[in-house]
Amino acid sequence: MAEVSATLDLADRKREADHPHSPVVRFPAGEPLRLDAGIDFSPLQIAYQTYGTLNVERSNAVLVCHALTGDQHVVNRHPVTGKSGWWETMVGPGRAIDTERYFVICPNVVGGCMGSSGPASTNPATGTPWGLDFPVITVRDMVRAQAMLLDHLGIDSLFAVAGGSLGGMQVLQWAASYPERVFAALPIATSTRHSAQNIAFHEVGRQAVMADPDWRGGRYFAEGTNPRRGLAVARMGAHITYLSDAALHRKFGRRFQDRDNPTFSFDADFQVESYLRHQGSSFVERFDANSYLYLTRAMDYFDLAADYDGVVAKGFRGTPTRFCVISFTSDWLFPTSEARAIVQALNAAGARVSFAEVTTDKGHDAFLLDEPELFTIVSGFLEGAARARGLKPARG
Amino acid sequence: MAEVSATLDLADRKREADHPHSPVVRFPAGEPLRLDAGIDFSPLQIAYQTYGTLNVERSNAVLVCHALTGDQHVVNRHPVTGKSGWWETMVGPGRAIDTERYFVICPNVVGGCMGSSGPASTNPATGTPWGLDFPVITVRDMVRAQAMLLDHLGIDSLFAVAGGSLGGMQVLQWAASYPERVFAALPIATSTRHSAQNIAFHEVGRQAVMADPDWRGGRYFAEGTNPRRGLAVARMGAHITYLSDAALHRKFGRRFQDRDNPTFSFDADFQVESYLRHQGSSFVERFDANSYLYLTRAMDYFDLAADYDGVVAKGFRGTPTRFCVISFTSDWLFPTSEARAIVQALNAAGARVSFAEVTTDKGHDAFLLDEPELFTIVSGFLEGAARARGLKPARG
Repeated sequence: MAEVSATLDLADRKREADHPHSPVVRFPAGEPLRLDAGIDFSPLQIAYQTYGTLNVERSNAVLVCHALTGDQHVVNRHPVTGKSGWWETMVGPGRAIDTERYFVICPNVVGGCMGSSGPASTNPATGTPWGLDFPVITVRDMVRAQAMLLDHLGIDSLFAVAGGSLGGMQVLQWAASYPERVFAALPIATSTRHSAQNIAFHEVGRQAVMADPDWRGGRYFAEGTNPRRGLAVARMGAHITYLSDAALHRKFGRRFQDRDNPTFSFDADFQVESYLRHQGSSFVERFDANSYLYLTRAMDYFDLAADYDGVVAKGFRGTPTRFCVISFTSDWLFPTSEARAIVQALNAAGARVSFAEVTTDKGHDAFLLDEPELFTIVSGFLEGAARARGLKPARG
Repeated sequence: MAEVSATLDLADRKREADHPHSPVVRFPAGEPLRLDAGIDFSPLQIAYQTYGTLNVERSNAVLVCHALTGDQHVVNRHPVTGKSGWWETMVGPGRAIDTERYFVICPNVVGGCMGSSGPASTNPATGTPWGLDFPVITVRDMVRAQAMLLDHLGIDSLFAVAGGSLGGMQVLQWAASYPERVFAALPIATSTRHSAQNIAFHEVGRQAVMADPDWRGGRYFAEGTNPRRGLAVARMGAHITYLSDAALHRKFGRRFQDRDNPTFSFDADFQVESYLRHQGSSFVERFDANSYLYLTRAMDYFDLAADYDGVVAKGFRGTPTRFCVISFTSDWLFPTSEARAIVQALNAAGARVSFAEVTTDKGHDAFLLDEPELFTIVSGFLEGAARARGLKPARG
């Protein structure tokens, strides 16, 4: 079975959910988050990180939207894992999203587990974690909460919104919901709606979590258990979909782990098995199982067309936002055909849009990895947008 | 969680493993199966079905090799599920593999759970099911056991061997191990070695089974439990890989199940979720969890080149067998590139080989489905081979 270590401290996990290693905004009960489920949720808490400096015109803010298992720790050491930030290849001084030029904000999404309100947060009515009593949320709810955060921070307009995968869904939702607040949008490796196959993969992951007796109907915090095995299986399966056949072949092929011949057993004979088990076991150390259910569900529900009479283009008609849509040749989770559908909708809406398909064998995860072509595209797009916006050129 | 019913009777399951609704051959202790793991396994039992009539020349036998979750019940009502056979589209009177002309034999593979020796069979030394004490087996072991069965039945030479997926691996192994016994070979939707991605998917399935506390280290029969949830999760994940993105989109899209709007819950909102849950729950009614571990492992270990100094072609040099290699455009588990590699190896070996890629959006499972182009190719290939073999033409 998955080699999960026993170092996870549930108390630490709960503390991070309520009192994270990040700035937070706690909205009073009178400022609830209106959810698509028809609920006014309160009290809402949003945790976020910022990098760089907001200029006096308040015109250089870049909102970074994180993916399913990401969080607000874009370019700082992660408080739970101790690892470096998840987008250090893209964001930082001199990077494509240059923190010497832009003021980067990344909030933890609603439903997450790193300090924004989610199922691991304490329900003030009971004093215990919300668990499955937390309302089911959507991508639009995430974006609405981010807009509340920006209001609170006094940022009316974003220079850019950028993100990949679920982050890219948020980018599209931002541009649809708040076109006047988004000057430039960078949806990467994403889609206007989650496909049947992607819903299916998510459902398997959720079933793996819920099949674990330690999940306890979502009340594992209260009962002192943790559905490690189920969440590890979910992560292992999902991780395959983030890579590509070619990348797995290049990295592992059929090589055996620490030996030359098969063991004729169910040990992790192959390197790829050992790698996947590690992916599963390390994930459960940092991520909340219920958050995994909520965030996968939000992705499944995402369907921009449904809000606009089945026509995505209607969501962007007359939009002032300029778009740069990016996909990766080997991404089979959000293939280029999905990106082309976004571009077609934007074209039909008369939007200003550029499109780039990056050639790589790294699969969906390419947006997180060292892809020089990606960085060139992003920095070039932002450079052009910055000129159009009248932002001062970069130092030097 | 997966909606599994409680109708599975473990006693029935055990009975089917030892005393199946099929003819069986029980080999005496003096005729063990020599396994790749270096073990002489005995007593070996092989369960099989036959259809049609062996001609007096004993020259019209067609061996059908079943896939991972198939069994010997090719065209008869299944004794456990009551459903029709798994290849009724292909095999039967007047079908591409015409039982009015050919004598079709399908054995349950070693490691299976429908009457051939496997982990659910009784270990005579203990009187309880083998469980994980059953030796890990390979595709070559399966084929070696089938050769023993054919020896027992007095069939020296097969007119044809046909199968898809794991069945196709057996076809290739048959042609490599016993070239003089195989006149024609039909490997469908298969490969000469399991890819890293496919090993990865299998490993997730095994982890799902082994993570289920009811698996009990493989001793669930003895302990009166059944790892239903784990096996259902494994099946759900695997099932996605048998289909295609396009097929899932066509069949289900993003349609809701029995409603028009999302429930904002973790119920099976989408039709594709409901369908997958059904696939999981029905599978556990008929299949043994340990067999799933053993048969996925056998597929992972399959690597024809490894037996021939890394060069598949060496395994077929001078082969008298004629081959028809078939793949499906939308099969991403065993994509056409794998079929081309088989064809290239056969060409390099100087073999007689034809190749067809069937255009379909049905994915890997297309070999089991109603694909007229597939049937035309198979019947045409067999017709030509029958003439070459001097088989009498079909009646009428």
